[in-house]
Amino acid sequence: MNDMTIPKGFRFSGLASGLKKSGKLDLALIVSDTPAVCRGVFTRNRVVAAPVILTRRVVAAGLCQAILVNSGNANACTGSEGMAMAEKTAALTARALNIADSLVAVSSTGVIGVPLPEAPFAGGIPRLVSSLDSEQAEIVAEAMMTTDAFSKRVSVHEESGGYSLLGLAKGAGMIHPDMATMLGFVLTDARIEPSCLDRILRRAVADSFNAITVDGDTSTNDMVLVLANGHAGTAEITTGSEAAAVFEHHLRQVLLSLAKMIVRDGEGATKLVEIKVCGAGNETEARTVARSVATSALVKTAFFGQDANWGRIMAAVGYSGVEVDQERIDISFNDILLARNGIFVGPEAEIEATRVLTLDEFVVTIDLHQGEAQASYFTSDLSYDYVRINAAYRT
Amino acid sequence: MNDMTIPKGFRFSGLASGLKKSGKLDLALIVSDTPAVCRGVFTRNRVVAAPVILTRRVVAAGLCQAILVNSGNANACTGSEGMAMAEKTAALTARALNIADSLVAVSSTGVIGVPLPEAPFAGGIPRLVSSLDSEQAEIVAEAMMTTDAFSKRVSVHEESGGYSLLGLAKGAGMIHPDMATMLGFVLTDARIEPSCLDRILRRAVADSFNAITVDGDTSTNDMVLVLANGHAGTAEITTGSEAAAVFEHHLRQVLLSLAKMIVRDGEGATKLVEIKVCGAGNETEARTVARSVATSALVKTAFFGQDANWGRIMAAVGYSGVEVDQERIDISFNDILLARNGIFVGPEAEIEATRVLTLDEFVVTIDLHQGEAQASYFTSDLSYDYVRINAAYRT
Repeated sequence: MNDMTIPKGFRFSGLASGLKKSGKLDLALIVSDTPAVCRGVFTRNRVVAAPVILTRRVVAAGLCQAILVNSGNANACTGSEGMAMAEKTAALTARALNIADSLVAVSSTGVIGVPLPEAPFAGGIPRLVSSLDSEQAEIVAEAMMTTDAFSKRVSVHEESGGYSLLGLAKGAGMIHPDMATMLGFVLTDARIEPSCLDRILRRAVADSFNAITVDGDTSTNDMVLVLANGHAGTAEITTGSEAAAVFEHHLRQVLLSLAKMIVRDGEGATKLVEIKVCGAGNETEARTVARSVATSALVKTAFFGQDANWGRIMAAVGYSGVEVDQERIDISFNDILLARNGIFVGPEAEIEATRVLTLDEFVVTIDLHQGEAQASYFTSDLSYDYVRINAAYRT
Repeated sequence: MNDMTIPKGFRFSGLASGLKKSGKLDLALIVSDTPAVCRGVFTRNRVVAAPVILTRRVVAAGLCQAILVNSGNANACTGSEGMAMAEKTAALTARALNIADSLVAVSSTGVIGVPLPEAPFAGGIPRLVSSLDSEQAEIVAEAMMTTDAFSKRVSVHEESGGYSLLGLAKGAGMIHPDMATMLGFVLTDARIEPSCLDRILRRAVADSFNAITVDGDTSTNDMVLVLANGHAGTAEITTGSEAAAVFEHHLRQVLLSLAKMIVRDGEGATKLVEIKVCGAGNETEARTVARSVATSALVKTAFFGQDANWGRIMAAVGYSGVEVDQERIDISFNDILLARNGIFVGPEAEIEATRVLTLDEFVVTIDLHQGEAQASYFTSDLSYDYVRINAAYRT
């Protein structure tokens, strides 16, 4: 993956509007030269922020030309005034761009429960529009950050297909006290059938953004949007074609890269661990078991403590709700088999497994030996810093 | 509740058998003079320890005369050898007491995945039997401890009914690296119809042991047993009677007291918080929402940080899976209303709510305003010490 391939027909801008007291970048705009096919997935939380409600409507209509994104305020739990502000900021953007309101998606991240002020948008939006530029995608990734340690972007150019994908994301769990939100935007100049894009996105999100966990808390603001504007000038990608398979491969890679960056930047995280469950009866069961292990506080603290504690993993497999046979379960850390048929292999294996745990990144493989299906979940360790970050007073 | 009322017809003993390297008490015996009606509930974890399998059989048969309990080794994930050891220790106990093997329940807590050695039992059981005494229930509570900070017992004497209940428990989540298990034993000299006891126990456990969380991890060894030996000499308590309602009230109080002690002794816990959900459509929904909030790492770290972070509570309500209307949700800390109709009440309420958070024990009330049902969950805060305790190397 080349990190700076920008798809054709998109422009970007970002600035410090005053939403963040620190004076850091906090407002950004992504604009497609023409309305783009837009598909998205949103938080499953029943408590949803106003921008999620508004942007769901844009996605339902199917076309999007601009994404306005702010950090510093999540516009969540803000009632009808929050909804009115989401609509107002979309309208201000539409007017400045001279496009229909219905083509503008909005997205917010930051403090929950604090009214979104109008002034930063009223002042910032015209400046964003006048400074749009096709080169500066990076500034959008920066303006999306709350307390992310690094900005998250990735791009890929599909040589034979003649198009590019650019992914931008933010998030590190629910990073700060009352900072919520994971956001992901993927821009492509490919031309793709909307229903084809929809199917591909849903599958790709299941294996990436929906397969990561930092603390098991689902935010009120999560969204992933894909905009495909067709400016590469290539043939339309349709369902079932070879080109669709290639596009799906690239989209999965982009989303998976961004998702892993979010876990690596997780609150207090020192490790990125893939929990891979294989030998499951079906994929749903594999995913359920992987999720149970990936979200266990005891397993995550053991990773932090570099303790090859397979007993906690066995326990988390057991309470996942999936029917398992404890006498058939194998557990490995990278290529070190530590438990076979549900019992301990021996002290030498433990010494080697403990060595694996000193790595920044490793794979725990759990073989259920009851089928062929597999799934992975990506998780971080649970450290003192997680508690420090989340227990600190709000400033 | 008087803390030292011992039901009639029970004897107790405990000793240091060598299972714990520290030389602390680690093996105990509870014996009823005659076979007692026995009912129990067990971990729902599909990975279960050998003693759970054995004791389930005893409960299924309905009568129990002795409970052998050890700490220092959970006899979990130990395969067929572990099962053989559970049977052997029950048989040794039965022989020493001259009763049938099928009347002996066994229960273990401690390290997972390490074979249970025979010698401590072979040496300890005859000594336990010869030192049985009707006064020393406390020694059993002590011998059950792993790294519990205090032993957990409670008793109640029912004046008009003429019987007593004694409850003994251990647990503080999964306390130590690979220390698992919550155990609860209730002894009563009441005479009670087995089916009546069964119904009452299931209801009472739902509101107590099944409504607490320290880290959301369900152990492989959890069990709660009730032994009713009828030695009080009173009339049999039958389903639907006034006496059954009184007995249920007392059993609930005993189990709830023990359950709260476990949370208060939770790993690294500094606070005991009741998450009370009211105004729910039904009790299951109330419990599901309460559980979602009580197990949220973000909510628990906010409690530790004494941050009245109602936004995280809203988010955890929202992702519980229960259909809620965010615009009708009220959230209070003790009697301080902090969010009304899903939005912030104001800075003064926050100052007062923050004061509530300095207390060792408080109630968070979440009113969904969509029905009449309610349920509570008891949780601890998530502190640095939780991470320290669980990340430490195994010794």
